Amino acid sequence: MAEPRRMSEKVIALVAFGTVDPSCVQALEAFEMRVREKYRGVDTRWAYSSKTMRSRMAERGVAQPSPEMLFASLMDEGYKRAAVLCLHVVPGVEFHELRQNVQRFEGMRGGFEKIVVAMPLLSDHADMTRVADILLRKCEPKAPGEGSVFVGHGNARHASDAIYAAMNSLMMDRNPRMFVGTVSGHPAPEELIAELKNSGVRSVRLIPLMTVAGNHAKKDMAGDEPGSWKSVLAESGITSEAVFTGLVEDSEVASVWLDHLDRAFSRL
Amino acid sequence: MAEPRRMSEKVIALVAFGTVDPSCVQALEAFEMRVREKYRGVDTRWAYSSKTMRSRMAERGVAQPSPEMLFASLMDEGYKRAAVLCLHVVPGVEFHELRQNVQRFEGMRGGFEKIVVAMPLLSDHADMTRVADILLRKCEPKAPGEGSVFVGHGNARHASDAIYAAMNSLMMDRNPRMFVGTVSGHPAPEELIAELKNSGVRSVRLIPLMTVAGNHAKKDMAGDEPGSWKSVLAESGITSEAVFTGLVEDSEVASVWLDHLDRAFSRL
Amino acid sequence: MAEPRRMSEKVIALVAFGTVDPSCVQALEAFEMRVREKYRGVDTRWAYSSKTMRSRMAERGVAQPSPEMLFASLMDEGYKRAAVLCLHVVPGVEFHELRQNVQRFEGMRGGFEKIVVAMPLLSDHADMTRVADILLRKCEPKAPGEGSVFVGHGNARHASDAIYAAMNSLMMDRNPRMFVGTVSGHPAPEELIAELKNSGVRSVRLIPLMTVAGNHAKKDMAGDEPGSWKSVLAESGITSEAVFTGLVEDSEVASVWLDHLDRAFSRL
Amino acid sequence: MAEPRRMSEKVIALVAFGTVDPSCVQALEAFEMRVREKYRGVDTRWAYSSKTMRSRMAERGVAQPSPEMLFASLMDEGYKRAAVLCLHVVPGVEFHELRQNVQRFEGMRGGFEKIVVAMPLLSDHADMTRVADILLRKCEPKAPGEGSVFVGHGNARHASDAIYAAMNSLMMDRNPRMFVGTVSGHPAPEELIAELKNSGVRSVRLIPLMTVAGNHAKKDMAGDEPGSWKSVLAESGITSEAVFTGLVEDSEVASVWLDHLDRAFSRL
Repeated sequence: MAEPRRMSEKVIALVAFGTVDPSCVQALEAFEMRVREKYRGVDTRWAYSSKTMRSRMAERGVAQPSPEMLFASLMDEGYKRAAVLCLHVVPGVEFHELRQNVQRFEGMRGGFEKIVVAMPLLSDHADMTRVADILLRKCEPKAPGEGSVFVGHGNARHASDAIYAAMNSLMMDRNPRMFVGTVSGHPAPEELIAELKNSGVRSVRLIPLMTVAGNHAKKDMAGDEPGSWKSVLAESGITSEAVFTGLVEDSEVASVWLDHLDRAFSRL
Repeated sequence: MAEPRRMSEKVIALVAFGTVDPSCVQALEAFEMRVREKYRGVDTRWAYSSKTMRSRMAERGVAQPSPEMLFASLMDEGYKRAAVLCLHVVPGVEFHELRQNVQRFEGMRGGFEKIVVAMPLLSDHADMTRVADILLRKCEPKAPGEGSVFVGHGNARHASDAIYAAMNSLMMDRNPRMFVGTVSGHPAPEELIAELKNSGVRSVRLIPLMTVAGNHAKKDMAGDEPGSWKSVLAESGITSEAVFTGLVEDSEVASVWLDHLDRAFSRL
Repeated sequence: MAEPRRMSEKVIALVAFGTVDPSCVQALEAFEMRVREKYRGVDTRWAYSSKTMRSRMAERGVAQPSPEMLFASLMDEGYKRAAVLCLHVVPGVEFHELRQNVQRFEGMRGGFEKIVVAMPLLSDHADMTRVADILLRKCEPKAPGEGSVFVGHGNARHASDAIYAAMNSLMMDRNPRMFVGTVSGHPAPEELIAELKNSGVRSVRLIPLMTVAGNHAKKDMAGDEPGSWKSVLAESGITSEAVFTGLVEDSEVASVWLDHLDRAFSRL
Repeated sequence: MAEPRRMSEKVIALVAFGTVDPSCVQALEAFEMRVREKYRGVDTRWAYSSKTMRSRMAERGVAQPSPEMLFASLMDEGYKRAAVLCLHVVPGVEFHELRQNVQRFEGMRGGFEKIVVAMPLLSDHADMTRVADILLRKCEPKAPGEGSVFVGHGNARHASDAIYAAMNSLMMDRNPRMFVGTVSGHPAPEELIAELKNSGVRSVRLIPLMTVAGNHAKKDMAGDEPGSWKSVLAESGITSEAVFTGLVEDSEVASVWLDHLDRAFSRL
């Protein structure tokens, strides 16, 4: 580049799945502001891990880099040390692939001397109980017949899917009318119906356990098509209303991600 | 080597934690026999991932290689393709480290063209329900006051720990007097006491959810020291008797590992 | 990208040092045409290995990617197999760094399955004699007092520098009034003066043994500053005239590079 | 291992081609002594890069590790930092393959934090002139009809072969009756005959430009079979007598390798 745009040799790379939803974009930008306030003098950059989302963002005129494109650019600009914060909820396929690819840039000639990758939101038991406590405080159902279901993405074909079942246990331990399920993994809606009924719940709030409340929240959680959480609950006589805020919009949950970044950055 | 000992260019590397317990050694050898029967004409070799266990095996005169030592030797002997089967229960820290190190050998000059790594026992939802069904069939408690607790290793500081909580849910769904806990993660014994009592259980069988029933099974699960599962249960008035067979000794559970090996080997 | 621009899963990456000289740019484009004619249906792309040159190209409004940026983009576009042709003259520091970095992209998740890197122009004895024979045919000095000096870049701190001394021997064997020297390595101008005088040469043609005839040819070879080949020769009473065509402009020399590409591409 | 044998976290790995010749073994051991004297408190270990030589050493009851086996063992023993000294003469195929493989061990989980690889004997112009000066001092032919030919291994298919032609020029510049040739590359014996005759040489000393004076020195340089240096020279009426000391036996040449080790070790 003609003139280096960088402020320092260190850089923070924020990686999200990608989104074209304006409110989701806003939520991510607000999160970035918190990172910048905390790490004054350190540049921050975004990359998006979903090729489909990058295509849709490009169609809207906002070309965005893949993580690999971002790291190749950062290397070209002369950065030597990077902390990567993945705004994923669990360490699933995407996180592992991202981490493997990004680590390939460490030690490239003329490039990064060190790259550290922060863990996703729910990466050990302490994270899980901490987030469960936050969700309990914020979303505890009031009236006896009311319940809350936090709906994550899930992936039945990856071990990280178990985190949702574990979170479901943690939430139910905290309040027997609070549950966790997924749209592509387990617990699936059908698997929680019995528990919901046992607990006497007749109406639930559907709350995304997702970074941002994008398409999955709108369709697979709260949509009217068959198979959505809303539809399956309705078939069992349970009414639902949906909340459309992503986890990154909650300042306490966002702090969990920030703490992961802190831990990674301190090793930089 | 003066004379190549190898039968083919392919080799199967079996990796276990390591053990000095004669019955555990036997269990691993019996498993190896099943692998050999299935893959006639393909060599099999062992490596042990725990440095402590390798030291203790060496003290007993049985020097055993680390995974890296095994792969360096296999490369020297001229093998070109390897399938690695990890006899771990969950994809935890050990599995991820092993996989990363072993993959470094792929593409070394003069060495392996391809290395595939099979997944541990419980690596997705299908594995988990399959194993839960096997355990239900074999270990279902008969009398009303009896229960079963499958005790795994666990690791509170790794995401894979959630698999035990998820397995606990799956077992309880199958039979409300069957549980899953861990010795170093969650569910910890204290976390299951309430559920055990709710289900009316007064005596339980403690069954290792571990590859082999070694020290962890003998001490942390069934030992008399404070904090063991046996001790914590006793404090709550629940009697226990321990079973000392590891998962690898159960032919149906072993088949899950073998199926993972099949899937990996087919990509070799 | 919104729409894939790629014609196939294979791509040819051409890597040059970088240049802002219009005639050099033309020379590279002409070479690319030959590659395209030969590999119809396979996309070709350029990357430039010199950060300084990329900056200067960007200043002129032609932003060009580093090799790493190119490979990150190609990966994003969905290419799976790449052959890399380095338009370097010798396998020096640049080539080795490029190869190491580019090979990091092989096996990235969601990216390249295979990347092969073709060798630079002079990478073994056969290349060297082949190029020496071409140069002899094209540039043999006619009159007794005339000589030719082929001037390469050179790098006194890398083993590849020896290739220029070896080429000097090969050229002198073919015609005792033909020499090879370098601007940053050996043979340096002072080191050839004695030989030039012994051979009775009083005037030489200075001919770039460089991919393109850019700044090094204009300044370090044919410039008037002290230390240039022209100046050092003049101090010893040897007049010189310079030729400003790069090796890539010679169709026979270009064929050597193309043959290296063929050999690499056939392994793709 | 039961008890760590290591003195420190750092280790020096010496890598040679491999030899079964007792005097060559002695020469390598003497070199190791110099390394140990210089690096007191740092362990040193050998590995041998030639599989054929390892087999022949094993047949004689001295099983020796490949570089990969050595590094896997060192990792197992708990070493964290290694400097590798390659006792090769030029950075050829073997050196590059060794370096690539050995660097794979850097950053393995539970293993080496840093691995530095020292360059072979002749790795830049300074090395080449330094060694040429040493050889001049020690082996300058006395009587007018006498010459010296330093014979290296060579490899016509690798760029590093040019180092021998470059060394030939450097030696001839120093004394027109001193030459450098190779047994498997260039200059080949036939290629030096004319120069030898021009210089009036009628008898030459054949001196290995090899780490140790093993089979290549005995057969390809000084043997009686057709094609050996001795035979080709004899056909041209030049008599020869052979010297059988390897470069590593010369304390001044050995110091070049040691200086390379120093430079590498200082980066550890």
